[in-house]
Amino acid sequence: MTKILPKLTGPQDLHDLSSDQLLQLATEIRERIIEVVGRNGGHLASNLGVVELTMALHHVFDFKHDRLLWDVGHQAYVHKLLTGRNARFDTLRKDGGISGFPNIEESEYDLFNVGHAGTAIPTAVGMARGASLMGEDRRVVAVVGDASIFNGVAFEGLNQAGTLKRQLLVVLNDNSMGIAPTQGGMAEYLAKFRVSTVYEDLKRGVKKYLPQVPVIGMPAFNALDHLKEGLKAAVSPHQIFEQLGFVYVGPIDGHDLGHLIELLQLLKDVDHPVLLHVHTQKGKGAEWALAEPTKFHSPKPFKVEGCRVEIQKSGTSYTAAFADALIRLAQEDHRIFALTAAMPDGTGLNRFQEVLPERFLDVGIAESATVDIAAGMCKAGLRPVVAIYSTFLQRAFDQVFQEVVLQGLPVIFCLDRAGLVGGDGPVHHGFADITYMRVMPNMAVMAPGDEPEIEAALRLALTLDVPSAIRYPRDTVPAPLYGVAPVPPYELGRSVTLREGADATILAYGSTCRHALDAAHALSADGIEVRVVNARFAKPVDREMVASALNRGGPVFTVEDHSVAGGFGSAVLEAARDLGLRADQVIALGIPEDCFIPHGARAGQLARVGIDAASIAVAVRGALGHPSAVVARAALERHRDLAYVPTADET
Amino acid sequence: MTKILPKLTGPQDLHDLSSDQLLQLATEIRERIIEVVGRNGGHLASNLGVVELTMALHHVFDFKHDRLLWDVGHQAYVHKLLTGRNARFDTLRKDGGISGFPNIEESEYDLFNVGHAGTAIPTAVGMARGASLMGEDRRVVAVVGDASIFNGVAFEGLNQAGTLKRQLLVVLNDNSMGIAPTQGGMAEYLAKFRVSTVYEDLKRGVKKYLPQVPVIGMPAFNALDHLKEGLKAAVSPHQIFEQLGFVYVGPIDGHDLGHLIELLQLLKDVDHPVLLHVHTQKGKGAEWALAEPTKFHSPKPFKVEGCRVEIQKSGTSYTAAFADALIRLAQEDHRIFALTAAMPDGTGLNRFQEVLPERFLDVGIAESATVDIAAGMCKAGLRPVVAIYSTFLQRAFDQVFQEVVLQGLPVIFCLDRAGLVGGDGPVHHGFADITYMRVMPNMAVMAPGDEPEIEAALRLALTLDVPSAIRYPRDTVPAPLYGVAPVPPYELGRSVTLREGADATILAYGSTCRHALDAAHALSADGIEVRVVNARFAKPVDREMVASALNRGGPVFTVEDHSVAGGFGSAVLEAARDLGLRADQVIALGIPEDCFIPHGARAGQLARVGIDAASIAVAVRGALGHPSAVVARAALERHRDLAYVPTADET
Repeated sequence: MTKILPKLTGPQDLHDLSSDQLLQLATEIRERIIEVVGRNGGHLASNLGVVELTMALHHVFDFKHDRLLWDVGHQAYVHKLLTGRNARFDTLRKDGGISGFPNIEESEYDLFNVGHAGTAIPTAVGMARGASLMGEDRRVVAVVGDASIFNGVAFEGLNQAGTLKRQLLVVLNDNSMGIAPTQGGMAEYLAKFRVSTVYEDLKRGVKKYLPQVPVIGMPAFNALDHLKEGLKAAVSPHQIFEQLGFVYVGPIDGHDLGHLIELLQLLKDVDHPVLLHVHTQKGKGAEWALAEPTKFHSPKPFKVEGCRVEIQKSGTSYTAAFADALIRLAQEDHRIFALTAAMPDGTGLNRFQEVLPERFLDVGIAESATVDIAAGMCKAGLRPVVAIYSTFLQRAFDQVFQEVVLQGLPVIFCLDRAGLVGGDGPVHHGFADITYMRVMPNMAVMAPGDEPEIEAALRLALTLDVPSAIRYPRDTVPAPLYGVAPVPPYELGRSVTLREGADATILAYGSTCRHALDAAHALSADGIEVRVVNARFAKPVDREMVASALNRGGPVFTVEDHSVAGGFGSAVLEAARDLGLRADQVIALGIPEDCFIPHGARAGQLARVGIDAASIAVAVRGALGHPSAVVARAALERHRDLAYVPTADET
Repeated sequence: MTKILPKLTGPQDLHDLSSDQLLQLATEIRERIIEVVGRNGGHLASNLGVVELTMALHHVFDFKHDRLLWDVGHQAYVHKLLTGRNARFDTLRKDGGISGFPNIEESEYDLFNVGHAGTAIPTAVGMARGASLMGEDRRVVAVVGDASIFNGVAFEGLNQAGTLKRQLLVVLNDNSMGIAPTQGGMAEYLAKFRVSTVYEDLKRGVKKYLPQVPVIGMPAFNALDHLKEGLKAAVSPHQIFEQLGFVYVGPIDGHDLGHLIELLQLLKDVDHPVLLHVHTQKGKGAEWALAEPTKFHSPKPFKVEGCRVEIQKSGTSYTAAFADALIRLAQEDHRIFALTAAMPDGTGLNRFQEVLPERFLDVGIAESATVDIAAGMCKAGLRPVVAIYSTFLQRAFDQVFQEVVLQGLPVIFCLDRAGLVGGDGPVHHGFADITYMRVMPNMAVMAPGDEPEIEAALRLALTLDVPSAIRYPRDTVPAPLYGVAPVPPYELGRSVTLREGADATILAYGSTCRHALDAAHALSADGIEVRVVNARFAKPVDREMVASALNRGGPVFTVEDHSVAGGFGSAVLEAARDLGLRADQVIALGIPEDCFIPHGARAGQLARVGIDAASIAVAVRGALGHPSAVVARAALERHRDLAYVPTADET
């Protein structure tokens, strides 16, 4: 049988396919996704679930003119395959390759670079209003999952959407899962509805039996109309959407392509906000993914052999090390309570949940509420530990400020995925947390440099009467910084010198300590001796460390896996200023402030911004005017000259 | 008649009062609030609306043991009067006086320092779960307005609350108003319901007629139960809350004290989340406030003479100057579209709305969605201008990043109330926006120094292909920086020297330019000549300005109405480092990083942190070792040694 997918030039080709060919294409798309994600890693189960839905949308709408917005965007692989990106799909998430999320540089069909949940609806409202104001007749469609749709900003968007006096189609892709099973009251409500099979029958029943319902006889009450609504209300989740001003349609089977196309044709030109409720199965088309959709949400590369699937293993991650440390501490300290926002697996807290289920809460994709709930718990006497990715805690900036910092509550924030994240790219880099946490009064901002330091940092945080933030990257833990020696306990605002050396000083923050040490070892072979300090704190920054580094002469490097705007390096400069010390010998290594580092391998990203061991060594040589200085400088300048690299023209 | 309020020692005294005395107390409380707010300014209409509700809550619950959480908190004056703060209430919002919001330093009855909307429910969920986990039998009550309850984080909290297996009472204080009339689909739905008067009758009707409704005869469908639900659903706003897992009760009259007490007694021990829907009138008890609740939401001091009320006038505010400038520009440039989040009056955009209603949108208390809607509009070709207070834009940090910055969309953010805000205090200070905007790649971060500069900055922003942020304080505009000369146009990353002088340099940002100029004039009388530069940009910071200041010798001051952690001063230091220039002669004047400046007059706050003209002059003299240096230093040290001043023990 000839393959269809490789010949597809764009969504317009869908119209030339027969029903059977469309079904064949759906199968080919699933095979292609399993093949590439198996090789490269990436988001699997969610994409397998939206094959028919995506095909139907592109069949019915012309998204060169109309607007399609994906919420979160990790389910856009099918969309990518249909919009001319099949040939390059092998490069998914690789350096210079196809992004794992919608990407405006990649295709005119991608309108927003996304990655965080809940934004498609408000953005769609803006695009719809914008199109109307510009006098353009564009339809707008937003696809949102059932976990995202009750996220705060999505709900705010729904609340606005209902007041639109024009077309807007919101497709609720309901698979009863976010990344983990969906949480909260609405999720329970939807779940109740899902187990009911009576809706379609009921609709017919209402039509048939409605005339028999007696008029209740109160003047202001139109019994027929209201009872009809009432009947639907009793078994359907439509009310909330109708209350918000939407026409609610569904739920329908999201894997019945013909029916989807038919229904979308009908809804296409409805001149009013419509919510189409579609049931899909996360992992559809692969039994093993269907059976364990959380495991196959975003797996590392895997091999399928018959019905056995083996996912690539890697070393101990910072994430796992954090989870293990927190479990140990929680067994000693009964005040500890762990919270996450829809990321029990991603934060490692699924392990905590197994061991201490009564002291764990997954609030769902609701970072803002998670922080507020933690604040309330802290006020009640517990010691909440909130584990959220650095990039997602941006959602709770104001809650961290008002409910935690302003009250002086010692909530502990554990920021996973802090720094460059590899394949997920710019939508997920944790590039800003040092800056946004450092501006919070009295917050202790720290970063462990290796596995044992995670527990040491947590131990200190548990003794503080101020809030604290502990950051660590999406990476495996490095060789221990202290070798076989015990880790010096964390003391608030105190650094630890890892290595002495008279030629230069490196003040390293968090995971860059290992790179700095490795650079120092390499330089030592050339007779360059570098002092390496594990700064541990960005706030309060160790002023003795700063004074000592600046007073001894020689270049001083600040190294951080973070933007250089307002980060650890700036804390060092502020301390120098307050101490009245000159700091013109300071060189900052970190993410340049005005660029977005593209997706790819994390190791390559670290090299690119100049914070891996080799780049740090180059920078030191350069600053010392070593024979290799010119080469070194050139290399460094290249690192600095970063911009968002367009990937569309690359192969 | 003897007054009751002055003798009230605490909420427990309410039990000793007869029904008539309780009504008298309600009247006294309203008189007291009108008297003090008339003198001091403050939140009026919202407090007049919750007199009976607050009395009933304190009558039924013992909030020394139980927990009461106010959403936003601007409606907590009655609560303050009932909890022993009547005698000090004259000091409302004054230096060292009673805060205009709940304040944990003030009373054991205040559990959280609040001021931003939507947080009471998630915080209450945390406190409820916390109390249960600590084995404490505490009831938890959250009072939330109808504008706040559909804010994103409030909704996230509702979604979690529904899953609680214990007591939690959420009181929905529904006055159909936030600060402005409530916006969005839910608001329209509640409004429809408000005009209906059939609910109570209907409930009786359902009970009476239900047996007559035929069973529809489908096996999975329990007609009786569902029809009963359906009937209620058809005319009540309860569904959304019941879907979220709450028992819904109401709506009831929030000014019928007896009924409120009776109902709260019934609900007090319900072992399940309950939502009590209460109708109140904003401004109840004062005809003029009832008639214009937006005008009397948070008025300046006013005088009541019969039925005439005169509100104190003040000079042109930055807010008004912004609104006027934007209207002028919008009349030239049809791409401009203005958005606000529930603050049409506070941001001055009510004027814009009057002139260009079709190019204005109030999204309600939903800063996150406001930014996303703006992003969508910008993508559609408009030039959205988003006016939000600095402190509230914290709610949209992630949306600014993902939907705007990551897309490179030239949305213009106008941050009102940037810097110290006077009477509203720490919950409203805009102390962090320079830092959190500066970490955003490619964002232009600027601040006008006087009225004409607002238009000049907006003009530049409209030409940029990157997003921009323009900040200005809650203050009257100063005397023009350039006298009668025209304002030099804004150029990206270029400062303007306002005054030459060889002894010292002041790099002033935004509204501090005037203070710096005034300081320079005062110093000039003593023969000290200071160069004053209007920096205009915190990002990109003017590197020539930095180099010139640092190379010419003499002390260099950076002055900003903002935290010194990561702000404008840090941008100067970063530039110096990147230029390889020593910056040990730099002295940063701004808000110290680890303190909260208490409420009071803005002028006093500026003096306290050392950024008014007098303090700047003191700092310059000190740095130059002028004869007054010792005195100056001491004064400066005092300024630096700031902390959250407890007000509970002051008189």
